[in-house]
Amino acid sequence: MKVDGKQYRTIWPKKEDSTIIQIIDQRHLPHQFVIEDLATVDLFAAAIKEMHVRGAGLIGATAGFAFYSALLCAPDDDFEAHIESASAQLIATRPTAKNLAWAIERQKNAIKSETTLEAKRNKAYEVACRIADEDADFCRRLGLHGLEIIKEISEKKKGAPVNILTHCNAGWLAFVDYGSATAPVYAAQEAGVAVHVWVDETRPWLQGARLTAWELGQQGVPHTLVPDNTGGHLMQHGMVDLVIVGTDRTTRSGDVANKIGTYLKALAARDNNVPFYVALPSSTFDWQIRDGVKEIPIEQRSDNEIKFITGQTASGCLETVLISPEGTRGANYGFDVTPARLVSGLITERGITPANESDIVALFPEHK
Amino acid sequence: MKVDGKQYRTIWPKKEDSTIIQIIDQRHLPHQFVIEDLATVDLFAAAIKEMHVRGAGLIGATAGFAFYSALLCAPDDDFEAHIESASAQLIATRPTAKNLAWAIERQKNAIKSETTLEAKRNKAYEVACRIADEDADFCRRLGLHGLEIIKEISEKKKGAPVNILTHCNAGWLAFVDYGSATAPVYAAQEAGVAVHVWVDETRPWLQGARLTAWELGQQGVPHTLVPDNTGGHLMQHGMVDLVIVGTDRTTRSGDVANKIGTYLKALAARDNNVPFYVALPSSTFDWQIRDGVKEIPIEQRSDNEIKFITGQTASGCLETVLISPEGTRGANYGFDVTPARLVSGLITERGITPANESDIVALFPEHK
Repeated sequence: MKVDGKQYRTIWPKKEDSTIIQIIDQRHLPHQFVIEDLATVDLFAAAIKEMHVRGAGLIGATAGFAFYSALLCAPDDDFEAHIESASAQLIATRPTAKNLAWAIERQKNAIKSETTLEAKRNKAYEVACRIADEDADFCRRLGLHGLEIIKEISEKKKGAPVNILTHCNAGWLAFVDYGSATAPVYAAQEAGVAVHVWVDETRPWLQGARLTAWELGQQGVPHTLVPDNTGGHLMQHGMVDLVIVGTDRTTRSGDVANKIGTYLKALAARDNNVPFYVALPSSTFDWQIRDGVKEIPIEQRSDNEIKFITGQTASGCLETVLISPEGTRGANYGFDVTPARLVSGLITERGITPANESDIVALFPEHK
Repeated sequence: MKVDGKQYRTIWPKKEDSTIIQIIDQRHLPHQFVIEDLATVDLFAAAIKEMHVRGAGLIGATAGFAFYSALLCAPDDDFEAHIESASAQLIATRPTAKNLAWAIERQKNAIKSETTLEAKRNKAYEVACRIADEDADFCRRLGLHGLEIIKEISEKKKGAPVNILTHCNAGWLAFVDYGSATAPVYAAQEAGVAVHVWVDETRPWLQGARLTAWELGQQGVPHTLVPDNTGGHLMQHGMVDLVIVGTDRTTRSGDVANKIGTYLKALAARDNNVPFYVALPSSTFDWQIRDGVKEIPIEQRSDNEIKFITGQTASGCLETVLISPEGTRGANYGFDVTPARLVSGLITERGITPANESDIVALFPEHK
């Protein structure tokens, strides 16, 4: 998508030297647009853990390139141990995100049949690029499926803007391009269907206020920032036509783990008969599990993310401020699980499916 | 309640000169404890509107003293017009808060039968003090009723801490003393019943992070600060035994308007069979209305409260930072309405009642 009119992805091999991978360091948005070079597994792991990059698809793509980077510095002897240790280090960075293990697994399988270290490196580079390309392509395609839902509402509203609420950032910044929840929005914009997005600010990390508001602004999509507390009120008063969110891990039965607070919006949508859709490339499916609440591990992060907030002062500097009493203890759960019963449908690259095992598996029969 | 071990109310006539009313200016908490003098209607109105004072009971008590202050500077001629204009100015400050109009109405009725301006002034002072005393007394009493609910859960848990989630600050800082939602907590503490409070930070104004965390800390009540998004996850995992919140306006049918986001917690409580109680002195009842969603006016405030956050820097200064793109537009609804169907019961100074008109009116038969 575009930043100040120039086309970007969220991750790419450096033009001059493809052993270096470049990312947008999202910690500085919306105040500063910073590009960071990554070239060692430690740097990749830190970038994922400390959220220079975040979001289901982008974490997967970053892990794909990180695996390639691990091969670049792998010794000829002790190769297996080196790769296992790098993989474990990467997978441990964000326990809820399914795409992480998915990308690593895909890389491991891909290099198996290659016999030389050089061939393995070449293969890993090729697969990392393919993961990134596929992520962008899947997001673009699911956007077109999601567009149909928006179009239908738009017709009912006789062309008045369709009000879409989203939580966190499942935008292009969370993937390689297009985004998941935002892909139908961008597709609607391109198709000339009027939309307006309610952007949940998404405490504590403020992905909505910092990233979604910024990326929608860059693409010229009308939007309004709201505290996470607001969605219920908006829905009670008919101000939301549709909720679309992303997911970091989806069970084969259609439960979704997404940014903490998603479940509350799903409850409000159900209470007010507002359709609640989850958009995802199929890479976020965890085909092994059925009960999301019991089986999906929920990441816990430092309570400093709650107690301290970074923003821009009037003089243009970035400053971090304490918002609670200094001694207060906080609990920072990164995700919650929305049970399939509250999900109107899953928007995937292959089409839209009801959130239940038989329909999901009918769309992805290779996982029967 | 106590601040650094010293007993305080949230509002009181100045010891040396009772024509001046003193408040704790809550905008500076938890970083600074500032006492402010109020002596003109303009200052009172600004203090309510700009949230130097806030919270159902405290807004009522402040309005009571503000009315007295209006009489102090009322001219002998044109007395009625002066009072009407001051009353209108005060009522316009916070449209959702019922206690505001309630206190003004009570003052107007009280001074009616007095014939001289001096007698009216004396009466208004007496009534303002009575409103404040009653607020404290009603909160203390509803705390004892609420304690019974906590005790019952504590017995079932064999004395393990009862986990109570609260939203916003319905603490002593929101009333004259004790608080509404916190009164049962303080009563439990005094009775030696173990409790632990989950404190919703309460965006955008952060009443939870700034005020509830601070006042619970001052009283030594164990608590944990969480983003507003967290309650659903906690309830899904059995980590909340009870929700208690306050209310700024309560219909005769038991709908409650409380800080934005309360409705979402009520939905999560219902979905997870967690009891959801609302604590209120009866002054927050609006006996004229039945349908909260349709009939309670919802205050909208500046979106600067969303986009900018004030906190303490590492060097101890207060600093305000921008957290979103500069040009982003926000919507800042102050309250939402939780329908009575989601409320397990109302904890009042007269006892606990189911949230429906016949039971409520049975407890307050003077409003039949």
